[in-house]
Amino acid sequence: MTTNRLEAFSDGVIAILITIMVLELKMPEGATSWSAIRDSGLLLKLLTYVLSYLILGIYWSNHHHLFHVVTHVNGRILWANLHLLFWLSLVPFTTAWVGSSHNAKIPTAIYAMVFLCSAQAWDLLNRQIIKLHGTDSTLAVLIGRDRKGLISRVLYVAAVGAAFVYPWISDALIGAVGLMWLMPDRRIERAPH
Amino acid sequence: MTTNRLEAFSDGVIAILITIMVLELKMPEGATSWSAIRDSGLLLKLLTYVLSYLILGIYWSNHHHLFHVVTHVNGRILWANLHLLFWLSLVPFTTAWVGSSHNAKIPTAIYAMVFLCSAQAWDLLNRQIIKLHGTDSTLAVLIGRDRKGLISRVLYVAAVGAAFVYPWISDALIGAVGLMWLMPDRRIERAPH
Amino acid sequence: MTTNRLEAFSDGVIAILITIMVLELKMPEGATSWSAIRDSGLLLKLLTYVLSYLILGIYWSNHHHLFHVVTHVNGRILWANLHLLFWLSLVPFTTAWVGSSHNAKIPTAIYAMVFLCSAQAWDLLNRQIIKLHGTDSTLAVLIGRDRKGLISRVLYVAAVGAAFVYPWISDALIGAVGLMWLMPDRRIERAPH
Amino acid sequence: MTTNRLEAFSDGVIAILITIMVLELKMPEGATSWSAIRDSGLLLKLLTYVLSYLILGIYWSNHHHLFHVVTHVNGRILWANLHLLFWLSLVPFTTAWVGSSHNAKIPTAIYAMVFLCSAQAWDLLNRQIIKLHGTDSTLAVLIGRDRKGLISRVLYVAAVGAAFVYPWISDALIGAVGLMWLMPDRRIERAPH
Repeated sequence: MTTNRLEAFSDGVIAILITIMVLELKMPEGATSWSAIRDSGLLLKLLTYVLSYLILGIYWSNHHHLFHVVTHVNGRILWANLHLLFWLSLVPFTTAWVGSSHNAKIPTAIYAMVFLCSAQAWDLLNRQIIKLHGTDSTLAVLIGRDRKGLISRVLYVAAVGAAFVYPWISDALIGAVGLMWLMPDRRIERAPH
Repeated sequence: MTTNRLEAFSDGVIAILITIMVLELKMPEGATSWSAIRDSGLLLKLLTYVLSYLILGIYWSNHHHLFHVVTHVNGRILWANLHLLFWLSLVPFTTAWVGSSHNAKIPTAIYAMVFLCSAQAWDLLNRQIIKLHGTDSTLAVLIGRDRKGLISRVLYVAAVGAAFVYPWISDALIGAVGLMWLMPDRRIERAPH
Repeated sequence: MTTNRLEAFSDGVIAILITIMVLELKMPEGATSWSAIRDSGLLLKLLTYVLSYLILGIYWSNHHHLFHVVTHVNGRILWANLHLLFWLSLVPFTTAWVGSSHNAKIPTAIYAMVFLCSAQAWDLLNRQIIKLHGTDSTLAVLIGRDRKGLISRVLYVAAVGAAFVYPWISDALIGAVGLMWLMPDRRIERAPH
Repeated sequence: MTTNRLEAFSDGVIAILITIMVLELKMPEGATSWSAIRDSGLLLKLLTYVLSYLILGIYWSNHHHLFHVVTHVNGRILWANLHLLFWLSLVPFTTAWVGSSHNAKIPTAIYAMVFLCSAQAWDLLNRQIIKLHGTDSTLAVLIGRDRKGLISRVLYVAAVGAAFVYPWISDALIGAVGLMWLMPDRRIERAPH
């Protein structure tokens, strides 16, 4: 099977996730002064939105890079991809919760946990793709040992733990993962086709 | 007519259905302790979400497999597909209702009923496709007698009935259908093209 | 310019419109008995949803048929299409209003009015397409004098007027338009390519 | 890398942004008389929606025209595009705020500010594309000095300032930008391919 529909479906899901997060950014009726804005907690909600947008943008960008070199898919890959999208689908929920709870401990820990599960699902998807294409395929060489993915997961584990002590350290760790991935994966981009 | 737009439209609708279900997973303002989370009924809502995500994921995956072998469509197939999407479009509504009513009898019965109607619509779509391609086409042979579809509908009928007695048996039956379909339809995947 | 993105964008918008209408179908917390369901006005909301789904489904299906024979587009067609999508985008709003107001006069009149404007926008889109392809093109011959479109608009005008007297006659007229269009436009489907 | 997925993803995001703005157009329960409609502030919300729809429609149309001549993309362009979509994603939020605050000063200023940032992001995206394709490419010549883009940004700056004095002047300035762009960019449309 070709990758067209898997890509289109993933694009659709990620595009919707990014945009429905915006539904949380809602001002109370009559909030028109700077002090009302400050009291509404908009700034924190906006910052959490930016962070979640960044991470989801990275997943989209990496998904794009990854499937640029994938030539065919099977049922296992479809489900590994649906599994990844499941964890990403929880991001608007956790984002809203962190924003409305003023970065409280448990919501922040769950926010980090969902990103950790997404990163695991990403790793699983990569493994299934390598399995289908063969470990000595160009693709396997290009993906190689996913050091960045490993570092991300370690940082996410730290973020889950840190949330129970200082939630803002947790946010900083997630932000650090985001910045690390912001650079596109040049290994794949440079691949000959 | 080619299948491009039918596939793109179906991908779009299913992607949106999956993601707007997440809008139900909303924590009450200030729910930041484990006990507040327990009282909010989040766990049941999350489990219902997982179940609905699984079933919708199966429809997307099977739709993908099915249209992999469909070569052209007519107006009847467009409408059989829109009919299927109509029933699927009710899933976020029934999912939210089951979640917010703590798995009450009537909401659970209607939840199962919508899945039953979706399964009927799926069968109808398959019939229309076979009708257009001819009963002796490769496609008709591949789809063949849809035993899994028949078992699903029987289990859904049982789920509707069970909901009025023990709603959790109803959920278990729906989950059983999900697990049965989780394996991709190898008949189509193995088809020569 | 080719029609790819115009089709993809229209598919996206219509898919989202169809699915966000479902967000209105929300049961009040604790509505788990048949009498609570009856009191919630769910049935009317559901019927209005079915009617709107039918009309939007027809637009998608006709759009699909139409662009099946359109070979290229220009800026005017892009905007005629965006204009059509604008009117369609108001359908979830009017649908929700009719449903929540128990089919009251003014909401029903505005519901019919939005369909009338959509039908006008559809006609405008057809004219722009014929203008670009030439009045003696295969496409112009296929679209021909759009008698069905004219009847629809007459019925919609009647529906707007009827809403101020008997709103249910208005709904019946809109439903009649829906049934008339349910049959795909065989003129285009049979076209040689 | 080809432009397929970037276009599909952008189409998806803009389609969703346009349609979720409609969720704000909600009538209070029982608002069925002309006076109830007037009191609900629906007219202002509708006008703000039309303005935002117009601007987002322009971005979609211009994006369509732009990527019509773009032949390949790199990671930087992916992110310049995600950056543009980020600012556009805030439009439903600012639109709702302007509508619900009866065009108050601060919300209107922020509404204009988000459009200003979007215009800057559009400019940045254009620069990244020219950088990749070469300053002497057909594309660079076609895009040329983006005078319309410059005028837009000047008008948006004025709109931000005007909002603090007369918010309706701010809206008029944004509307003027909209009308200016309504005409498709003939430079690109006329390009030989």
